[in-house]
Amino acid sequence: MKFRASINIMPLPALLDPQGKAVSGNMKNIGLSSIDNVRVGKHLTLEVEASSQPEAEEQVKTACEKLLANQIMEQFEFRLEAVETEA
Amino acid sequence: MKFRASINIMPLPALLDPQGKAVSGNMKNIGLSSIDNVRVGKHLTLEVEASSQPEAEEQVKTACEKLLANQIMEQFEFRLEAVETEA
Repeated sequence: MKFRASINIMPLPALLDPQGKAVSGNMKNIGLSSIDNVRVGKHLTLEVEASSQPEAEEQVKTACEKLLANQIMEQFEFRLEAVETEA
Repeated sequence: MKFRASINIMPLPALLDPQGKAVSGNMKNIGLSSIDNVRVGKHLTLEVEASSQPEAEEQVKTACEKLLANQIMEQFEFRLEAVETEA
């Protein structure tokens, strides 16, 4: 079975996010002073081939922990959905 | 009223995503050969002060178009939720 995962990787809430701060500052310059508290992270989509949803979850979790997220500075969350495969 | 927006900015489906390709390749190296078709984009969260949800949507859309996304290469989507403010 094929699953599609949608992953968000964000800087930990306790940490400063300089990129987000810069974007917040720039919002004022383009006349959007009502926008604040911008935080910038990564969004990834991927496909995983697995026999069951728990197995697919395990694979995506491993990928996040080993490769995608730096857990000292970032946290990740993801959701999975089964992909319909045409027969 | 305060709204929290959650924005995903991804490379257009028709375009190659070299960063995603590199991540796909590395999945094999860490023993996750079942993972494929990785695409890498940005995830942003921000807060916007507006009198109504449509007004907040308009502001976030403007921010994406003017500052956050490069619409030649990227597409964006977002969702808004009202933030409960304590009295």
